[in-house]
Amino acid sequence: MRESDLLQHIYRRSEDLPEGAIVLGPGDDCAVLEGGQLVTVDQLVEGRHYETGASLDLIARKAVGRAVSDIAAMGGTPACGFASAALRSGFDSADELFDLMSRWAREFGCPLAGGDISSVDGPTVLGLTIVGRAHVSRGPVLRSGAHAGDGVYVTGRIGGAVRSGRHLEVTPRVAEGAWLCETLGERLHSMIDLSDGLGRDASRVGVASGVLLELDSSLIPLHEDAGDVRAAIAEGEDYELLFTASGSVEHACSQTGTPVTRIGSVVEGEPGSALRLDGETIRTDDAGWDHE
Amino acid sequence: MRESDLLQHIYRRSEDLPEGAIVLGPGDDCAVLEGGQLVTVDQLVEGRHYETGASLDLIARKAVGRAVSDIAAMGGTPACGFASAALRSGFDSADELFDLMSRWAREFGCPLAGGDISSVDGPTVLGLTIVGRAHVSRGPVLRSGAHAGDGVYVTGRIGGAVRSGRHLEVTPRVAEGAWLCETLGERLHSMIDLSDGLGRDASRVGVASGVLLELDSSLIPLHEDAGDVRAAIAEGEDYELLFTASGSVEHACSQTGTPVTRIGSVVEGEPGSALRLDGETIRTDDAGWDHE
Repeated sequence: MRESDLLQHIYRRSEDLPEGAIVLGPGDDCAVLEGGQLVTVDQLVEGRHYETGASLDLIARKAVGRAVSDIAAMGGTPACGFASAALRSGFDSADELFDLMSRWAREFGCPLAGGDISSVDGPTVLGLTIVGRAHVSRGPVLRSGAHAGDGVYVTGRIGGAVRSGRHLEVTPRVAEGAWLCETLGERLHSMIDLSDGLGRDASRVGVASGVLLELDSSLIPLHEDAGDVRAAIAEGEDYELLFTASGSVEHACSQTGTPVTRIGSVVEGEPGSALRLDGETIRTDDAGWDHE
Repeated sequence: MRESDLLQHIYRRSEDLPEGAIVLGPGDDCAVLEGGQLVTVDQLVEGRHYETGASLDLIARKAVGRAVSDIAAMGGTPACGFASAALRSGFDSADELFDLMSRWAREFGCPLAGGDISSVDGPTVLGLTIVGRAHVSRGPVLRSGAHAGDGVYVTGRIGGAVRSGRHLEVTPRVAEGAWLCETLGERLHSMIDLSDGLGRDASRVGVASGVLLELDSSLIPLHEDAGDVRAAIAEGEDYELLFTASGSVEHACSQTGTPVTRIGSVVEGEPGSALRLDGETIRTDDAGWDHE
């Protein structure tokens, strides 16, 4: 079973959650608990999310930053974090690694409130739990709120993150997400962070909302080292925000200067995502490509 | 650096936590957040906490039960859980394992609200985050509240958990912890769950509280298969509650029937734990033994 299929299975199982502490269960960037609290868990696996021998500072930054990015994806603000580590036997920099995770957690607004350490006869596995708060007036921005007629937007630039090594230098878009909640309010219909590729992540919003996100290849803001647009939107690990909104949207975050670019429109259609490229429309729901 | 030393280092680093969401940071069974919310993270590592080939049902039960036991250790009630897994490449029962973790999480009162799945070229690592609530009137019961003059008590029986395989059949003492809060109120001074051995865990209460927990070997309720008392209190994984309280304490939990046994007293002395055995007093702060 593929990872995405398995996660889908878990989401289905959770549809009959008993009433209580959980307002929104698995399937979005974070769970939403009573009172608008957001919680996300994320893992960073040696050999999969970073290479053995990568800088400890960048490993720590990515571990914390990726998880905080899930809070940003709902327009929330991080409050505190928990770091656990199953460390490869003989790894002798545990103390430095935890110092660095602690530093990045503070930098990103969620000081570590707890953790757990173990050892393992294999690759190191880091686990981050981030607790945050939804925007006080807008509430949590879900994947499922996109409407036909919305514009589709991204923050920053896309592509080339893995090849360039930029995927380790995660800067979660917390300020941008909160600013969007503040300035757009209820016009901010849906949001997600870009971890698995613009095509695939846009498709998740489309599927969750029952609409088609139609992207225009000529509008997508690419990094200089991103290669062509097809590679760029499949590469992943951008950690930018993708959102849909009605009405007008400013071209940059007033607090950080991060550019905000309209890259397409939400339309009625087979739920998911597609790309307009050279007069064709290409489905972009998977990392692989399916021509219509 | 030993695991316990490293955790101590992390605790020290957290002493200057900025004011905000965190009421109590690392160093106790759970972190305490604003509003009396409890959060704990815990890992279960293949080859360390369970053997490859162990029953998936028991692996799932232990993974969830151990983490919930940290909530019980503060007298709290679990509310929801998050399960992450870095699964050994080729492990083909991911779906069954998540089904079972989901089932045990519901059984223990904390339905899964989210999770994460990855694969790893090595042993499986499971990560559980449990969110709970402190007892509404008593508040969270910390390790640091033991007073000279308190009695020292345990729930259930001690010893033999690893050899017998009982360590996989964790039943967190949530009902018992809540009942102690309810019936003893402010007389319930300190509490911890027994994961690393009665001697070592009692010592943690002693050190956190600045007192000596003096245990009487003849009073410790042992499982039939526990071996001698020295082995029993060093073996660990009992997942019973150890607490200190002033005044009288009932001999069993009125809700579950779980026995509650007085095993010693809190006295002034070098902070930690010690055992009265055959007329001698033996320090029991470490898994190893240091005669005074």
